Order: sequence, then structure tokens, then C-alpha cells
Amino acid sequence: MTFKRLSALIVPLLILGVAACQRSTGNQGEVEIRQWLDRWKSAFSARDVNAIMSLYDADVVAYDVVPPLQYVGKDAYRKDFEQLLGQYEGPPDVEHRNVHIVAAEDVAFATGLERISGTIKGQKLSLWVRFTSGYRKKSGSWFDVHDHFSVPSDLETGKALLGLKP
Amino acid sequence: MTFKRLSALIVPLLILGVAACQRSTGNQGEVEIRQWLDRWKSAFSARDVNAIMSLYDADVVAYDVVPPLQYVGKDAYRKDFEQLLGQYEGPPDVEHRNVHIVAAEDVAFATGLERISGTIKGQKLSLWVRFTSGYRKKSGSWFDVHDHFSVPSDLETGKALLGLKP
Repeated sequence: MTFKRLSALIVPLLILGVAACQRSTGNQGEVEIRQWLDRWKSAFSARDVNAIMSLYDADVVAYDVVPPLQYVGKDAYRKDFEQLLGQYEGPPDVEHRNVHIVAAEDVAFATGLERISGTIKGQKLSLWVRFTSGYRKKSGSWFDVHDHFSVPSDLETGKALLGLKP
Repeated sequence: MTFKRLSALIVPLLILGVAACQRSTGNQGEVEIRQWLDRWKSAFSARDVNAIMSLYDADVVAYDVVPPLQYVGKDAYRKDFEQLLGQYEGPPDVEHRNVHIVAAEDVAFATGLERISGTIKGQKLSLWVRFTSGYRKKSGSWFDVHDHFSVPSDLETGKALLGLKP
């Protein structure tokens, strides 16, 4: 085999390899993170804490709407979900809006606005929050390693702004 | 050239290609994002809005401590920085703690606690916030496509918790 014929074989192979490497960092991850978000919504509405926590990494670090500044590890974050979901009478509803997903092969993040609605102590409540989540892919599955949920604050009055809408 | 000799050439080439693809998703990105954070801190302390904004993508979407729910695009976010930095008498100080960085080849995110200290209206103020930032690498440089800054809120009293410390 001549060098020319060899090149004719190797060059397309290398291009294929690079293309495969690139493709796996693109849309497939976005589709999978969107599926992750749908699973999270279903588990949250069902108040199924086990199903929620199966989506998280053991070493998750979370910044929630409520204190403290950070929840470190799955056990701490699980208690936070139990505390929140225990307050709802009936299933809460979750709506996502303005979702952006950026995904590489095994690292991704998602951001968006989230409306959580439900009944607490006989009162119907609806709250728009901002969310950001960071993910790692391990053994073919995406796990959330970081959550950040919040509402804006008025620094002059010291009030949490709980009534904002997109 | 026989098929055997051809394989002996192609297989190591493919392994090298895969290794290069994998390696670029590792520590190098973490080092670069840490440098990004240092550049952000320096630019913030210098109240240099141009230097800050050079670190952001044109299509950045930001959730800040203060309203509205989201700042969409670089122009909107620039005004937010100008508004904040215009309040400080003298350079504000920034400290990062509990920083976690997850980086692939061209997608990364960083999370941590941030203390911003400075003098506003003659008063020395210090505030611990949580931050999450999402990045994309374009033409060899990392650009921030998403920021999320917040303090926790007390949902019972409606107060923003501005005095928390890690």
C-alpha cells in the first residue's frame, strides 16, 4: 500500500473520530438534560423524595431559596426536600420557562425560571424562582452535582421579592 | 503494506485521538476557570466595568441578588454592574470560598460562596452571597454565559437573609 492510499484511509478515519467526539458534546446531552428536568418535575409533583434524590450525586452542593447558605451532600439536601414537600396539601405543580441547556459530553448545566404552585396550610401559593443546575455524566447517566434556587432581594428594604413574575 | 502493519499504525493513532479528546476535558479547564474567577475579582475590585464585561458572552442570562428575575443580554447586565459598582466609595473587596469547578473541553461551571465588602453611603458593608456561573469556550477563551447570585430568604417572614456567614 502506498503512502497516498494509506492517507486516503487514515484521513477520513481521523475526520470521523473528531466528528464523533464533537457530536457527543452537542445536542444529545441537551436532549438528555431536558429528560432529566422532566423526571425531576414528575418526581417533585409526586412528592417522591426517593425518586428526586436518585437524580442527584452523593456530593451535591445546593443553594436553596431557604437557608442555610449551602446544603452539602445528599443527606442534607434530602432533608431540605422532605421539609418543603411535607408542607404541601396535595401535589404541587411545577412549570419551567426560559430554559437554557448547555451540554458537553459529560458536563452540562441548565438554567431557567420555575413556578411552583400548591396548597400550604389551606392557602393556594404560587412562587416564581430562578434555577441553575450543574450536571456530570457517570456510567451513562446524568447526575445533578449542584442546584441553585433563589428569588431576588430588595437590599434597601431587606425584603425577599416573592411576588415577581416573568 | 499489509493489513497487519496498517492496523499497527491506525490503532495507536485512534487511541491517541481518543486520549487527546479525553484529556482536554480535565484539569486544564479547571485551571482556566480559576484564572477567569481571578480576572473577574480583579476587575470587580477595580470597578472596571469594561474589563468585567469582556469576560461575558453577548447572550449572557443573569439572575442577580437584586431584581428583576433575570437580566437578558450583555447590555442589560452591564447596567446592573454599573448600578452596583457606582454605589461603592473606594474599591470593594471580593473573597471566594468553597469554590467548586467542573470543566469539560468547552463547557464548564463554577459555584461558591462570595463575600463582597466595601463602603456605601459612608457605611462599611459586608455581604455573603452564593454564586453559580456557566461558561462556554469560544476561539480558545472562556466566556460566562450565565451568572446566578443570591442570598437565601425566610419564606415565613418574607425577609432576605443578608447577615448569613459560612
